[in-house]
Amino acid sequence: MPTPDTPQSGQLQPWSLHAWYVAAMSEELGTTPLARTICGQRVVFFRDRNGHPVALDDFCPHRGAPLSLGFVRDGELVCGYHGLVMGCTGKVSGMPGQTVEKFAGARRFAVVERGSFIWIWPGSAESADLDQLHPLAWADSPQWAYGGGYYHVASDYRLMIDNLMDLTHETYVHGSSIGQKEIDEAPVETHVVGERVITRRFMNGVEAPPFWKMALRGAGLPDDQPVDRWQICHFHLPSHVMIEVGVALAGHGGYDAPDEVRVYATVVDFITPESATSHHYFWGMARRFAVGDAALTDSIREGQRRIFGEDLEMLERQQQNLSSHPDRKLMKLNIDAGGVRSRLLIDRAIARERDTLHQMV
Amino acid sequence: MPTPDTPQSGQLQPWSLHAWYVAAMSEELGTTPLARTICGQRVVFFRDRNGHPVALDDFCPHRGAPLSLGFVRDGELVCGYHGLVMGCTGKVSGMPGQTVEKFAGARRFAVVERGSFIWIWPGSAESADLDQLHPLAWADSPQWAYGGGYYHVASDYRLMIDNLMDLTHETYVHGSSIGQKEIDEAPVETHVVGERVITRRFMNGVEAPPFWKMALRGAGLPDDQPVDRWQICHFHLPSHVMIEVGVALAGHGGYDAPDEVRVYATVVDFITPESATSHHYFWGMARRFAVGDAALTDSIREGQRRIFGEDLEMLERQQQNLSSHPDRKLMKLNIDAGGVRSRLLIDRAIARERDTLHQMV
Amino acid sequence: MPTPDTPQSGQLQPWSLHAWYVAAMSEELGTTPLARTICGQRVVFFRDRNGHPVALDDFCPHRGAPLSLGFVRDGELVCGYHGLVMGCTGKVSGMPGQTVEKFAGARRFAVVERGSFIWIWPGSAESADLDQLHPLAWADSPQWAYGGGYYHVASDYRLMIDNLMDLTHETYVHGSSIGQKEIDEAPVETHVVGERVITRRFMNGVEAPPFWKMALRGAGLPDDQPVDRWQICHFHLPSHVMIEVGVALAGHGGYDAPDEVRVYATVVDFITPESATSHHYFWGMARRFAVGDAALTDSIREGQRRIFGEDLEMLERQQQNLSSHPDRKLMKLNIDAGGVRSRLLIDRAIARERDTLHQMV
Repeated sequence: MPTPDTPQSGQLQPWSLHAWYVAAMSEELGTTPLARTICGQRVVFFRDRNGHPVALDDFCPHRGAPLSLGFVRDGELVCGYHGLVMGCTGKVSGMPGQTVEKFAGARRFAVVERGSFIWIWPGSAESADLDQLHPLAWADSPQWAYGGGYYHVASDYRLMIDNLMDLTHETYVHGSSIGQKEIDEAPVETHVVGERVITRRFMNGVEAPPFWKMALRGAGLPDDQPVDRWQICHFHLPSHVMIEVGVALAGHGGYDAPDEVRVYATVVDFITPESATSHHYFWGMARRFAVGDAALTDSIREGQRRIFGEDLEMLERQQQNLSSHPDRKLMKLNIDAGGVRSRLLIDRAIARERDTLHQMV
Repeated sequence: MPTPDTPQSGQLQPWSLHAWYVAAMSEELGTTPLARTICGQRVVFFRDRNGHPVALDDFCPHRGAPLSLGFVRDGELVCGYHGLVMGCTGKVSGMPGQTVEKFAGARRFAVVERGSFIWIWPGSAESADLDQLHPLAWADSPQWAYGGGYYHVASDYRLMIDNLMDLTHETYVHGSSIGQKEIDEAPVETHVVGERVITRRFMNGVEAPPFWKMALRGAGLPDDQPVDRWQICHFHLPSHVMIEVGVALAGHGGYDAPDEVRVYATVVDFITPESATSHHYFWGMARRFAVGDAALTDSIREGQRRIFGEDLEMLERQQQNLSSHPDRKLMKLNIDAGGVRSRLLIDRAIARERDTLHQMV
Repeated sequence: MPTPDTPQSGQLQPWSLHAWYVAAMSEELGTTPLARTICGQRVVFFRDRNGHPVALDDFCPHRGAPLSLGFVRDGELVCGYHGLVMGCTGKVSGMPGQTVEKFAGARRFAVVERGSFIWIWPGSAESADLDQLHPLAWADSPQWAYGGGYYHVASDYRLMIDNLMDLTHETYVHGSSIGQKEIDEAPVETHVVGERVITRRFMNGVEAPPFWKMALRGAGLPDDQPVDRWQICHFHLPSHVMIEVGVALAGHGGYDAPDEVRVYATVVDFITPESATSHHYFWGMARRFAVGDAALTDSIREGQRRIFGEDLEMLERQQQNLSSHPDRKLMKLNIDAGGVRSRLLIDRAIARERDTLHQMV
């Protein structure tokens, strides 16, 4: 059983395999196959007759062609080279002029579509556990509106987790958009609660930055009064970061203020390892204000796309620097506690997974 | 003697050196030197005073500059850096201000021009044997017309041999041009005849695909009648594939029908290793119909260029997949017999060559 | 002490660290940080409050981000990720919400601005010795005019030294500009004088090439008379080449003729290793004629840019050839003596440096 999960190189890969990762946005998977490497494994995604997603090893057992160069016919994947037909379970269901019963198949991955995302469990499909899917309350509720997008990032996925579990960088990387001086002046506190890390920062009695002024106006609230602002970053295994953000008119209890005087949202970050030095980044925002305003959804999405684009160069250049100096120790400040503790949870999950595999052998 | 043939890395290269390969089309070699890597060796080609091709190691013995950056003067190659003059035999014939008698030379390769191709023997020049040149009957006869072109392909040259020794893929890769459903329904048979592999497929009583309808009309034959179609692939060492293709009006004996009721051609494929994961592909078609129609030659060439372009992405992505999974075993179906047996002939030729070299040592 | 100078790989690097190299032209270092790799080390350059250049390791000790992605505030470098402030000595001077006394710093390099260049000493800053700066008489005198530029070259820096210490190549590489047939017909002599190599070539009674005809006219001298031409290449450690070039009306003593009948200049070449197979090339010309003619300075600069561009392809392709054949021995002709002896001085300096470091340990 552990065999298919073993990384291709002898080196241990820095991610959990027995967990759900976002592989794609639902809108990315249409009528043609989609190739994407997840946790070091080349995978092809397509939709079966019922429109349900299927994920298989992107390697035709016949001659090694990528199945993703083929096409979907009647909900099965036809190899674009010699016409081998791969069924949804990874068994070959036909090939012109051949009897295929004894053919080798392709590895099937557990996959499911939820909340407008395609999720994959890169470990053995038998061990996949739907109960472990990340909860998606905002995706299933009409009280929330969601918009998001995708970036490929040439850095270790954990650098993105570090980035998101401490928002001090907003003042520097995003100085012209959502950053404000008060962010790096407000103390940050970090807690570990079970398998989750929470980093909190509160800025009370500050001027709302442009984004939140817009949100206040959209909710019919004044934008020229002091506000209490919060940023609460939640790290969830294997690598998701949900950030509660919002402002309330000052003096009404801040985060705990009644909905009449506050506006808030969740910054959604699904971070999926591709290789040791690259990852897929699915970002978005679920908001609780002006949920019917589709133009606002587009406008926020484009704003986020621009802001996260600012992070990309930093993370990719940071990765290059770290790859050049693999032995250098980095500092661990209070503002880094969110990332540091998230990495500890990841390390612990990887070790646990390794122990389980050993017991199975 | 074996020294110059030893691959640069310790690893055995998967090709024969003692054989003729196409290095270039005649039209590619004009008045300026041409650089091309053949079987892992960087070679410079130019023409001597008589217009005959010359092939030398592309490395100036003076300071290592590529001789191909120089120019040809009076049929000799002048290094573009300091003016060393390299004669056609690889001996230095002059250099400004120097006495060159004792200068190291550059390795000379056996090279010859035949059938509008420049041929090279990458093994030691002394062992080159013109009798082993691939026969080029179609190139020397006015009864045939020829047109062709060149592609650089980032895959092991043997993936191209596999591709051409089984045309089942036409249905999938070339569905919109020369493919037709009957191809993968017709059984294929493979024979080894001496040092040649032959794969044959016959489709009787089918509708002619667009290309052959055009050929029938060009030969003054009706294009709306059932035809007998054939594809006979011939593999020749070291790596050439000649494919006899054609149609005859149905019921006249197919391949053996008289010329009055049939049209036919040979798809010409000269496949030359560049590195372990790349090759030079010289493709073309020699045809026995409408041989005086130069516009048709151009039109067929452009059609082939487009069709073989469809193969390129498949082969290059197949190579990437195989490089990622070097240990995976592929399947060997009846349709693969042509490629599998061609590879056996190649392996046997390489082993024979190695044994010969050992005896020489 | 030797630790910071140890190359990152175990392999010995082919350059001296205890010497001054040009890192940038003064005009390249404005108000934003400049990233440049010098002798294998990633360095960030900026200007302090007084406009003096500062050079630090381009690696934020906090999380490894490149400091060069940050900005300069009040003459200190602010990391663009989380706002750590790096002082000019490499000590952290502040960070929002942090007490920074015990923070690790960044390595500081000795750096100085002279003659419109930023100079760096890549060895330990304590050992930097201003007396060893290359003399820049032409830069400090109103009797000379200077113009120059920069190229990044993908070759070992010593291939550029070879190139410049023998100008025979001008006939071939620069045939259409400054080359002339007489160059490779004139004998060349090479001397080693202390720590300097001098290569001299004199061409007497020749027709001036276009560049020098222009210079003669600019100096009010006839351009249609035979001239005595000279090229005197001086190699200086660690890797600078100064080439005295000029012409005098024939029969007045050539190089030693009085200024009334001659025009001359110095081709300035500061060559700085970046990696084992790449370097920074700062080229220019200091001239003693028409020094007030700014348009001429621009015109000469553009001419040099074009001419040195011709060398680039040759050097980069030569590097590729040498990298493919690391074991091949090159020839050492009389025309190569300048480069060969310069490399001996470099090797000796590297060995001396190694011995010194061992004694310190």
